[in-house]
Amino acid sequence: MKALILFGHGARDIRWREPFDRLKDKWVAQHPDVLVELAFLEMMNPSLESAVGSLASQGVKEIAVLPVFFGQGGHLRNDFPTLLANCRAKFPEITLSDIPAVGEDEAVLQAIISLAARSI
Amino acid sequence: MKALILFGHGARDIRWREPFDRLKDKWVAQHPDVLVELAFLEMMNPSLESAVGSLASQGVKEIAVLPVFFGQGGHLRNDFPTLLANCRAKFPEITLSDIPAVGEDEAVLQAIISLAARSI
Repeated sequence: MKALILFGHGARDIRWREPFDRLKDKWVAQHPDVLVELAFLEMMNPSLESAVGSLASQGVKEIAVLPVFFGQGGHLRNDFPTLLANCRAKFPEITLSDIPAVGEDEAVLQAIISLAARSI
Repeated sequence: MKALILFGHGARDIRWREPFDRLKDKWVAQHPDVLVELAFLEMMNPSLESAVGSLASQGVKEIAVLPVFFGQGGHLRNDFPTLLANCRAKFPEITLSDIPAVGEDEAVLQAIISLAARSI
């Protein structure tokens, strides 16, 4: 069984997570056969490890993690690989893969350009 | 004359800005008649004030600022309005408007869901 984790930065203000909750709801509505969890790097729960553990306890064997980050700085180049490695060590029965960050995707960037063009 | 500012967080790692540079390039290719500048909250240049000043010196009278942020936490709810107010005070001849953050846009969120669905 496969699952998706949407991985975000996290913030002190709880309202920061609203777009992430909407992403999760959209996934559930469009792909009800594939489990989804949110996970956060810092300041919000669950952590990546907790989200992987939750999915593992539901019988998931393959998890793809999508970093919902635009830029690839220290968080994605250093912190994220370390977290993934820790999860692989802790859950060796799970195949854990990572998707390039959303800021690498041309369709996501084009959606931003289209939003700007509609709004200016 | 109108212009667009794409406003991001900024980071220590210079490679973090690559998606922002691609956004700017896309805008220039698709909307060559509307000037565009990047601006950053912290750790990268130019600041919002510098970007507004640069556009003002080119004769721009109206600027729309699009926050390229997903979540709306302290940065967008507190820091950004203060920066906008400072810019309005410093450049009273410029009409400065703000577009809701990209994380509020359904098409942007859908592009992320479609990316996940293609990648899982």
